[in-house]
Amino acid sequence: MEKKNKEITSRDVDFAKWYTDVVKKADLVDYSSVKGSMIIRPYGYAIWEKMQEILDKEFKKTGHENLQMPMFIPESLLNVEKEHVEGFAPEVAWVTYGGKEKLDERFCVRPTSEVLFCEHYKKIIKSYRDLPKLYNQWCTIVRWEKTTRPFLRTREILWQEGHTMHATEKEAKAETLKMFKIYEDFQRNYLAMPVIVGKKTDKEKFAGACETYTIEAMMYDGVALQNGTSHYFGQGFAKAFGIEFLDKDNKLQTPYQTSWGVTTRMIGGLIMTHSDDNGLVLPPKIAPYKVCLIPIGSGEKLEKVIDDLKDALTKEEITYKLDDSDKSPGFKFAEAEVKGYPIRIEIGARDLENNQVTLVRRDTLEKIPVEAKTEVIMAKIKGLFETIQNDMYEKALKRRNSMLYEAFNYEEFKDIALHKPGFIKINWCGDVHCEDKIKEDTTLKSRCIIEDEKVDGPCCVCGKEAKVKIYFGKQY
Amino acid sequence: MEKKNKEITSRDVDFAKWYTDVVKKADLVDYSSVKGSMIIRPYGYAIWEKMQEILDKEFKKTGHENLQMPMFIPESLLNVEKEHVEGFAPEVAWVTYGGKEKLDERFCVRPTSEVLFCEHYKKIIKSYRDLPKLYNQWCTIVRWEKTTRPFLRTREILWQEGHTMHATEKEAKAETLKMFKIYEDFQRNYLAMPVIVGKKTDKEKFAGACETYTIEAMMYDGVALQNGTSHYFGQGFAKAFGIEFLDKDNKLQTPYQTSWGVTTRMIGGLIMTHSDDNGLVLPPKIAPYKVCLIPIGSGEKLEKVIDDLKDALTKEEITYKLDDSDKSPGFKFAEAEVKGYPIRIEIGARDLENNQVTLVRRDTLEKIPVEAKTEVIMAKIKGLFETIQNDMYEKALKRRNSMLYEAFNYEEFKDIALHKPGFIKINWCGDVHCEDKIKEDTTLKSRCIIEDEKVDGPCCVCGKEAKVKIYFGKQY
Repeated sequence: MEKKNKEITSRDVDFAKWYTDVVKKADLVDYSSVKGSMIIRPYGYAIWEKMQEILDKEFKKTGHENLQMPMFIPESLLNVEKEHVEGFAPEVAWVTYGGKEKLDERFCVRPTSEVLFCEHYKKIIKSYRDLPKLYNQWCTIVRWEKTTRPFLRTREILWQEGHTMHATEKEAKAETLKMFKIYEDFQRNYLAMPVIVGKKTDKEKFAGACETYTIEAMMYDGVALQNGTSHYFGQGFAKAFGIEFLDKDNKLQTPYQTSWGVTTRMIGGLIMTHSDDNGLVLPPKIAPYKVCLIPIGSGEKLEKVIDDLKDALTKEEITYKLDDSDKSPGFKFAEAEVKGYPIRIEIGARDLENNQVTLVRRDTLEKIPVEAKTEVIMAKIKGLFETIQNDMYEKALKRRNSMLYEAFNYEEFKDIALHKPGFIKINWCGDVHCEDKIKEDTTLKSRCIIEDEKVDGPCCVCGKEAKVKIYFGKQY
Repeated sequence: MEKKNKEITSRDVDFAKWYTDVVKKADLVDYSSVKGSMIIRPYGYAIWEKMQEILDKEFKKTGHENLQMPMFIPESLLNVEKEHVEGFAPEVAWVTYGGKEKLDERFCVRPTSEVLFCEHYKKIIKSYRDLPKLYNQWCTIVRWEKTTRPFLRTREILWQEGHTMHATEKEAKAETLKMFKIYEDFQRNYLAMPVIVGKKTDKEKFAGACETYTIEAMMYDGVALQNGTSHYFGQGFAKAFGIEFLDKDNKLQTPYQTSWGVTTRMIGGLIMTHSDDNGLVLPPKIAPYKVCLIPIGSGEKLEKVIDDLKDALTKEEITYKLDDSDKSPGFKFAEAEVKGYPIRIEIGARDLENNQVTLVRRDTLEKIPVEAKTEVIMAKIKGLFETIQNDMYEKALKRRNSMLYEAFNYEEFKDIALHKPGFIKINWCGDVHCEDKIKEDTTLKSRCIIEDEKVDGPCCVCGKEAKVKIYFGKQY
């Protein structure tokens, strides 16, 4: 594809620079004087609102309710669950003063809210009748990261966190997987991302969880982005907090817990999967504006075509942008490409003399001449939305598959790790020492255990008996 | 009206206790170990989501875009505008540590975001083509209050804050009033609150603003709740931040600014306007669930009636709760009353023998027997929603009017202030000394200047020439 935008570094030259160029040029984010935090600008926020809208509907359809917990956690409360506090304490922001007064106990800004939910659950769960509790909140969390990148790693993160309590282990495990599946389907079907899913190793799981399921997305450069997790906690937190309920036989029981979350990081993943040297490429199902109308020239006929199109788009609830500024057509085209509108419609006064307009697909930049008749244009773009959505998924899948490797001995593994970006599948004994050795030798970390594939050889690292198939890869 | 709920203190006995009983018993909030913050429980949060949905649509319809600013403000940035920092510095929460490291500069958690928006505007506003900027954000702010009450005064506040920039004074002033009108209409038409609106005095206006317009709602006990404000800033902040743009004649100009916000406090206002000794009373237009279905007994016929009703309600997008628990009917009725569902439908197996169900209006507790036919019930409840919405407004208006007083001399003023809850209208010279004197003598503060009423006497306090009519009242 022709690279036309000179303000964007080529992604094959410098992927990191390309990424920040795209998020800046597409007006997704801006920096502020608050180091490590970002301003999510209206166009970036509109993508997040779209994600929220779709996921929130799914959460509610599956019986979840939204609520809002405090944003602060007293230090003593954070300390209740040992593994959890060890995982988070090094990276929280501490509030020590309220106005001019030093606080008796300092508060951290929530890095995640398990302990707040547990404290609440202890108060409201008394009987089996109170279960399950299926709660979720949309909020901002803070993790005091050293190095940050827009959407991928920031000190403030916009996210949702589901926290649920169940009477039985079976129910809680089913919930963990149900929400995980919602994330997977959302990323495949809406974000057109061919994600790889599975369980984390003990080393990589969430602080305090029994099991962590992860969505691993492979970026254009072969590097992994952990793009959503769902945790099964067993009774660990519930016991630490003394949460108990009376079952139907009037016996005291401890409930089982889950939590699950996705963040604005998904926007980063979306960009690094699909976008190109001309800017953003957005799948139609998640694009805040599906169509961009660009008039070229002027005249009564042109105005009529635009008005009719606007009416038809509004009627069919297809979001659009109209660029009727006084900028040059070339400038407008480039702008529409930077913004990643899935289809732009160029409506030229001259083309209209031949009763024609031009549709341009953002994903391929293919130009499609179409009869300048509202019904014809509308039918064409509706078909194109589906085609673009599918083609984007297939293209990303093909690229991802071209960067999936398999290694059966450690030399082979190190050779691939050193020379080829992507994920490497191996047989693994399950021992953390082999996992550590890989990280030490190659910087690669385990991505996820592949649930439905049988081992077909010894452990790739130590040569002992293997227990599972697993992916390794570099990560963002 | 008969008081049936023994767990709720009577509002005429102890209004403050009644209020906290209602918010707790209706499951709107819970307390946590974070002093001054509250947990907004699912039912309370559903009311907020409903408010957000309606207002967000209005904001977008009038051209506003949502974005997200950082939640922290570096101390040096807060200090840029002098009046502003003096207003807020005493009540902010300070972050001084990130993990184990002491920060070079401390950050406060935003108490409001004017300075963050200004810093961003300075970067993105260069030309008249960049104006107006019509931005809004939904977020949480923190003000380190000493004494707190759920929804009314809390350390964390959920709100929206609109921040806009305009090329001319005229445009900015029009925006201030436009958004103010949206708030007023929303509170009248959706919350059924007969609010009083007008400009704040210089003493009571927002720190850094030229003009503050306020929505003053009178609660059941005659005390005022400031329930939304819209500020015109002129060029104060823009000058302090050095924001300039090139106009059409290529001359550098300073833009004009507004900000406007409403908070979860509106939920408190809603409760203290309409609710009663049996719990919440919610206007149909804001109720998360408009109807509660309560089956009594069992049987095939009863199930059929319920199923048909559920289908019809779903089809017409009328939200409902079905209470098919094994609790007693009396318990279910009380619960439906505590929750304030505008209409409950009692479907009794025995009543069905006479082909009858009973509708109960929450606002009046009136029982209305209706033929047990889906179409008949549906028609009846749709009509009732309108009636209830209007009746609730009228009832609140009547009560409010019964507590509006007028005083023409200071003895009269003090006498009313001492003995009668409510608002007192006076002629006022505009001098802050008279305003201060009233506060000192009676604790009453100015509510708002009445824009469309002429003075008809000398200043009620000092006897000098009056400039405006103004309301005074106690406030939450």
